[in-house]
Amino acid sequence: METKIKFSYPSSEKVYLSGKLYPEIKVGMRRVRLTPTVTFEGEKRHVEENKPVYIYDTSGPYSDPNIEIDLKKGLPKMRQSWIDGRKEGQTQMYFAKQGIITQEMEYVAIRENMNCEELGIKTHITPAFVCKEVAEGRAVIPANIKHPESEPMIIGTNFLVKINTNIGNSATTSGIEEEVEKAVWSCKWGGDTLMDLSTGDDIHETREWILRNCPVPVGTVPMYQAFEKVNGKAEDLTWEIFRDTLIEQCEQGVDYFTIHCGIRLKNIHLADTRLTGIVSRGGSIISKWCKVHQKESFLYEHFDDICDICAKYDVAISLGDGLRPGSTYDANDAAQFAELDTMGELVERAWAKNVQAFIEGPGHVPMHKIKENMERQIEKCHGAPFYTLGPLVTDIAPAYDHITSAIGAAMIGWYGTAMLCYVTPKEHLALPEKEDVRTGVVTYKIAAHAADLAKGHPGATIRDNALSKARYDFRWKDQFNLALDPERALEYYKTSNEVDANYCTMCGPNFCAARISHSLKNCQEESK
Amino acid sequence: METKIKFSYPSSEKVYLSGKLYPEIKVGMRRVRLTPTVTFEGEKRHVEENKPVYIYDTSGPYSDPNIEIDLKKGLPKMRQSWIDGRKEGQTQMYFAKQGIITQEMEYVAIRENMNCEELGIKTHITPAFVCKEVAEGRAVIPANIKHPESEPMIIGTNFLVKINTNIGNSATTSGIEEEVEKAVWSCKWGGDTLMDLSTGDDIHETREWILRNCPVPVGTVPMYQAFEKVNGKAEDLTWEIFRDTLIEQCEQGVDYFTIHCGIRLKNIHLADTRLTGIVSRGGSIISKWCKVHQKESFLYEHFDDICDICAKYDVAISLGDGLRPGSTYDANDAAQFAELDTMGELVERAWAKNVQAFIEGPGHVPMHKIKENMERQIEKCHGAPFYTLGPLVTDIAPAYDHITSAIGAAMIGWYGTAMLCYVTPKEHLALPEKEDVRTGVVTYKIAAHAADLAKGHPGATIRDNALSKARYDFRWKDQFNLALDPERALEYYKTSNEVDANYCTMCGPNFCAARISHSLKNCQEESK
Repeated sequence: METKIKFSYPSSEKVYLSGKLYPEIKVGMRRVRLTPTVTFEGEKRHVEENKPVYIYDTSGPYSDPNIEIDLKKGLPKMRQSWIDGRKEGQTQMYFAKQGIITQEMEYVAIRENMNCEELGIKTHITPAFVCKEVAEGRAVIPANIKHPESEPMIIGTNFLVKINTNIGNSATTSGIEEEVEKAVWSCKWGGDTLMDLSTGDDIHETREWILRNCPVPVGTVPMYQAFEKVNGKAEDLTWEIFRDTLIEQCEQGVDYFTIHCGIRLKNIHLADTRLTGIVSRGGSIISKWCKVHQKESFLYEHFDDICDICAKYDVAISLGDGLRPGSTYDANDAAQFAELDTMGELVERAWAKNVQAFIEGPGHVPMHKIKENMERQIEKCHGAPFYTLGPLVTDIAPAYDHITSAIGAAMIGWYGTAMLCYVTPKEHLALPEKEDVRTGVVTYKIAAHAADLAKGHPGATIRDNALSKARYDFRWKDQFNLALDPERALEYYKTSNEVDANYCTMCGPNFCAARISHSLKNCQEESK
Repeated sequence: METKIKFSYPSSEKVYLSGKLYPEIKVGMRRVRLTPTVTFEGEKRHVEENKPVYIYDTSGPYSDPNIEIDLKKGLPKMRQSWIDGRKEGQTQMYFAKQGIITQEMEYVAIRENMNCEELGIKTHITPAFVCKEVAEGRAVIPANIKHPESEPMIIGTNFLVKINTNIGNSATTSGIEEEVEKAVWSCKWGGDTLMDLSTGDDIHETREWILRNCPVPVGTVPMYQAFEKVNGKAEDLTWEIFRDTLIEQCEQGVDYFTIHCGIRLKNIHLADTRLTGIVSRGGSIISKWCKVHQKESFLYEHFDDICDICAKYDVAISLGDGLRPGSTYDANDAAQFAELDTMGELVERAWAKNVQAFIEGPGHVPMHKIKENMERQIEKCHGAPFYTLGPLVTDIAPAYDHITSAIGAAMIGWYGTAMLCYVTPKEHLALPEKEDVRTGVVTYKIAAHAADLAKGHPGATIRDNALSKARYDFRWKDQFNLALDPERALEYYKTSNEVDANYCTMCGPNFCAARISHSLKNCQEESK
């Protein structure tokens, strides 16, 4: 089954960088070719070459013309030979604690740095640094041993800010290619991980197809499948049903689980006085279970058992924030912070079993309350990576919540959040369609990249500066090719311009500031 | 000429609040009616009324069904009787310095507070406070005595953050209605002021039509018209040509002028080492003039004369940042800050002549460098209002620069910027079309409102909380009606839902967190 799912980026080629510790490692990057800068001094023509720009590439084999894609076979199992020599329970964190640098660790180190070394840009990100960060729990490499198709990536405050995208719907067998297409679409635009939130009958098979064909780590909320098994009756859930679901998904290759273990019976009432109650699906289900049974949740009670299962496969735990605020009014309240305290306790228990873990965060938070979220999370959760949904900084703009949330996301990313869960324009209104996914991903790439710039990630400015120079040089095509969304930039430009003009219709030739600015260089001589 | 330009907001009516000092003042507001919250306890039905929400309204008479619009006649001259009794040179700042509260001052005080008083929300914004802020230069009420059609509004850090929208194109006589339509369109979505950046032959007539029909203050960059008069040859500009242009526009009723007086001959070279030179049109023109003539600019040299003209009409001066950075690379550099120092000197000279003034700011600034802009501006410019363009926090997303800039705009608004100049998705690429204007305005309303929330503006949370409650109650229509863009919210919702369901297709009835959360209330009883 050869598909039309493959694509290429304009003026770009797929290149691979090799490891030093592990020469067999091949880290895929996108290299964008640029045209030279041409200037004139009187009649004399100066030509200055512009170096290609390397871009962190989440598209995997789909943008490599040399790799054949067959959805039925799945992607090449790149990590299989690395995994084969390992023993059960030897997670990335296990190795890191021994000071052993795995292939995954060197891979992510190379990946994070793009071509900084070649450009002489100093970087703190070495394989040894990655190892130390994973050992100390400040970073996570989600990498289920049963998902060898995925390309290693790292989530941690000292690395590039990552973004997660959600897909999910009930799929029919005939729609498998469609499901995979959605996943690839998200990877094309820059999604770093993918959460499959599918519900419905074909949940297992859909996930199987996604996992076998997805080049990025895949997360799930296992409660959704467990909830299906009890026909949507929260009170009928049991630890056994949940446990079996976990094992089933571990076996399939899910790389991280969102589990709402942080909800304690004694804290649920704290949400009673809220404006918008409990807005997390997993959180509301487990809260209902607790209240009906008047018991501590089995997720909390069996947390060590959950960790034992996850350790076996190196599945990371994303501690879900079941009591996150659903409105700016509810932000930073007692319910939210009580759960954060519990998550801080749980993350240490996960680490004790070498299970990688990160912490989910809000949600809806006005700007002046964002920083407190980050500071408390660092303090209470001992530096474990933070993974937030936005936050939305106002509630008055449904249909624009990708924007209300990108503002909060960029800020909290700058403050230290490691991964941002995207929000599409359809948030709160309807299920996102393909174009919504594209808009959501690009918007979150903006937030993540803005945070990288503000944090001073090595090499983060390369692309901005190359694009700005192209803009000032009127190298329009280079500007588009370097853009997060080359297609849309070109499309907008074409609404009123010819490509390659040395001005644009916004100002016209006479009013073009860049043109006048260029002319300043020689104007003292002219005026003599 | 009756037009189809009028409109109404859904479930809303135009209401007017009266003054206390000046009972003849009628401040238009939009009042949104809400449906009640209905809950069930077993069979018992509880009905809780939800108070209407008052929204700051920039749409003027266009949303009042009782006012007839005739573009040829122009809008009612609301302020004419207030102005008639005044003497030349009696600007808002002149009155404020005498401690005299004008009608405009009471008007904006009422406008800023919406219906806080009725709701018992404490507010610092009284007419006396407005008067003090204007007297001390911390706030500006742009109100040319020749533009009596405009509804007073205030720009200052202690007030609601405002947004400016730009329109402008060359118009033909037959296209007059179209030009006015663009202006009204921007006001409909919430634009607080409007800059007419038209160039071309019909510049005077286009402006006339806009001014006579525009309910918000209008700004211009007079240099553009002066530049046309010398056929685009910067070096041919003279003070006399510029002066005559100023007077012409004052007479027409322009409320504020962007003038790039801050460019000094000695500082222009500071832009030589930039990645993207000078990107302000006005800035590049006057820099060229300075360099060709090797003289201090006539804008700087004649600043006092400019102030004398502006004082006569109470036109505010917006000190244009001709050396603003055009890329994140150039942010906060010596050129930019040298100009800011000059603006600090000039603003005091303006105040000495009772001319209201504010300061323009960048542009392109990565997040970690935004705060310095605000702090320096406050320090160097003695608390004069700051008016920024974004700033864009990254340069890698052409076609999404409304978003890259909204992130910076929200942050700098929170830090104290008084007005944000909008950016549309077409920025850097093409002239915005109608839908781009809508997207740009709504995006900037988000940034401004997020800043209002973070600053704790009285009453800013009312709309957020009302919308959040509507969302949690499944009062879908109320949610849409309270949204910044009700039409788009409804349109998105309809892609997969029936209006008035007590769940939505995103989660379906079983997976709806809000529904489960609602059911928690009674579940302890149920479980007994």
